[in-house]
Amino acid sequence: MRIAILAHEKFPDRAKTALGVLRYADDDVVAVLDRDAAGDRVADYVGDVQDAPIVEGMDDLEADAVDALLIGIAPIGGGFDESWRDDVRTALENGCDVISGLHYFLSQDEEFVELADEYGCELRDVRKPDDDLTVAEGVAGDVDAEIVLTVGTDCSVGKMTTTMELARDAREAGYDVGVIPTGQTGIMIEGWGNPIDRVVSDFTAGAVEEMILEKGDEHDYLLVEGQGSIVHPAYSAVTCGILHGSMADRLVLCHDAGREVVHGYESFDLPSIPTYVDLYESLAAPISDAAVVAGVLNTSDLEDEAAERAVDEFAAELDAPATDVIRYDTDEVLEVLFE
Amino acid sequence: MRIAILAHEKFPDRAKTALGVLRYADDDVVAVLDRDAAGDRVADYVGDVQDAPIVEGMDDLEADAVDALLIGIAPIGGGFDESWRDDVRTALENGCDVISGLHYFLSQDEEFVELADEYGCELRDVRKPDDDLTVAEGVAGDVDAEIVLTVGTDCSVGKMTTTMELARDAREAGYDVGVIPTGQTGIMIEGWGNPIDRVVSDFTAGAVEEMILEKGDEHDYLLVEGQGSIVHPAYSAVTCGILHGSMADRLVLCHDAGREVVHGYESFDLPSIPTYVDLYESLAAPISDAAVVAGVLNTSDLEDEAAERAVDEFAAELDAPATDVIRYDTDEVLEVLFE
Repeated sequence: MRIAILAHEKFPDRAKTALGVLRYADDDVVAVLDRDAAGDRVADYVGDVQDAPIVEGMDDLEADAVDALLIGIAPIGGGFDESWRDDVRTALENGCDVISGLHYFLSQDEEFVELADEYGCELRDVRKPDDDLTVAEGVAGDVDAEIVLTVGTDCSVGKMTTTMELARDAREAGYDVGVIPTGQTGIMIEGWGNPIDRVVSDFTAGAVEEMILEKGDEHDYLLVEGQGSIVHPAYSAVTCGILHGSMADRLVLCHDAGREVVHGYESFDLPSIPTYVDLYESLAAPISDAAVVAGVLNTSDLEDEAAERAVDEFAAELDAPATDVIRYDTDEVLEVLFE
Repeated sequence: MRIAILAHEKFPDRAKTALGVLRYADDDVVAVLDRDAAGDRVADYVGDVQDAPIVEGMDDLEADAVDALLIGIAPIGGGFDESWRDDVRTALENGCDVISGLHYFLSQDEEFVELADEYGCELRDVRKPDDDLTVAEGVAGDVDAEIVLTVGTDCSVGKMTTTMELARDAREAGYDVGVIPTGQTGIMIEGWGNPIDRVVSDFTAGAVEEMILEKGDEHDYLLVEGQGSIVHPAYSAVTCGILHGSMADRLVLCHDAGREVVHGYESFDLPSIPTYVDLYESLAAPISDAAVVAGVLNTSDLEDEAAERAVDEFAAELDAPATDVIRYDTDEVLEVLFE
């Protein structure tokens, strides 16, 4: 699919979704829309992703050059910024689908609905859960694939990045791995998936199970994108539902080097790494024999020497192989996850 | 409030909500509607609840005798049975509010909305979560009240009944206890509350926290109605969200004597009682210092002698006082929960 990514005034540092799609999606990115950086190229800012021109708006692109416009940024609160309306309108008039992870649903915007109808295109709100989700049956363990799940010590420690990096490296190494996306960026990268944090709470496990049943006999391994942390004051419910709904076999524990308190909830200390291992494994045990077999550490804030030492210490605490998926290779970790 | 309870063709054995309201609510039950048992009285079937006449329909009651009609039964699937429409219509025409826990929302039924509007009454769908719920802030622990939470080894082990029985006994014993209802029957009994299993999964903890903040400075103790079980293949997310969102201080573990596998998910064995204690306490620990200080066992399937032995064994496994709240007194349990 040929896509344009809207990232006005926020590319690249405040455009997490745009960057994730540039880095990991199979789609061909025709252009990034950012009126502040028009005329530059993606490669002027970021080195390790596919390059593309940065343009002012949809008007700068040929009408038939793009299959879909993807909203690659989100303002605080997840609303729709009216300064984007012209681009969405032009996209629809050109027959492009529009894909959004905003809380504001484009498919409930009267003008966009009319245009999509008139020009035969689709408005895809990836944060809007399917209507036919339901409770889990406890059968995710019946699929052929081994289930690998990324779990974390907190939010924003790199579970999505870990999932995508490990999937890519594993495929390059010849393993047959499918990804189960559970969050908006993952869903945009993969082009499908259930936004687990938006489903009815009773269906949390069921929404994961449904995806595993769909893909579980097509691959040797499924790599499930985790969310939150099992001891997060606000988001642990989602984490717990994914742990049990996926009936995971193997867990990768993701952690951010040096983080000691819950991000945004600083009065709560993070437990020790061995405590996390115990908690995830003992909580999973009545449902599936899940073991933490590897770790991934985000060391982006550390100098080279400190980073190496931190990864070694993390591996020792886990008593398992560990790496930083951006900084180092993933060979050892792949070996224990996909053997 | 003077209420009538609709329980057509299902009273009393298949009318769990109707019975819960008759047994625990402060409301004055004017009549039960059951066309199969019309002419009988509640007391002809159930001994330990408030008595009321059973009538054929709303037409048999004085127009000004009732403040609200409560739907006290739910067909499989939670739909609205069209044979109830006349009663709801009559209720609204008499100026009665209508309270429902069905999946089918009365407030989206065109005829009912028009009648409610015309006669100035309210359609209250208790399974419909408030629109303004959001993520937890991790502050439920800041309220003055001690937080007591009922947790379970499975679904349908008696958490709602335990909550209501303990609240009643505690109040009789002079303790100042508020109830935090989290399920549809609890909400109908108390007349308020968030249906935790229906909220957006990201807001699970937040929906509990919001209720605790609302009531937490009005009482010495809040008794939170738990849901599901922390190792349930489908519902553990809800349980986990309530555990962390409530920031509970004390836990009561509820169990059904003799149950060895998950109800409806029989391929999953229940862990041992000490394993549950460890799981609930260790999972809560990073958020709140919660301890399992008492147990409640449902022994309704056992003869007297076996029941007594089962409660003793349960207490020994817990290393804490235990009782059956229906069969025995709750003195010892109250003492450790509300001291």
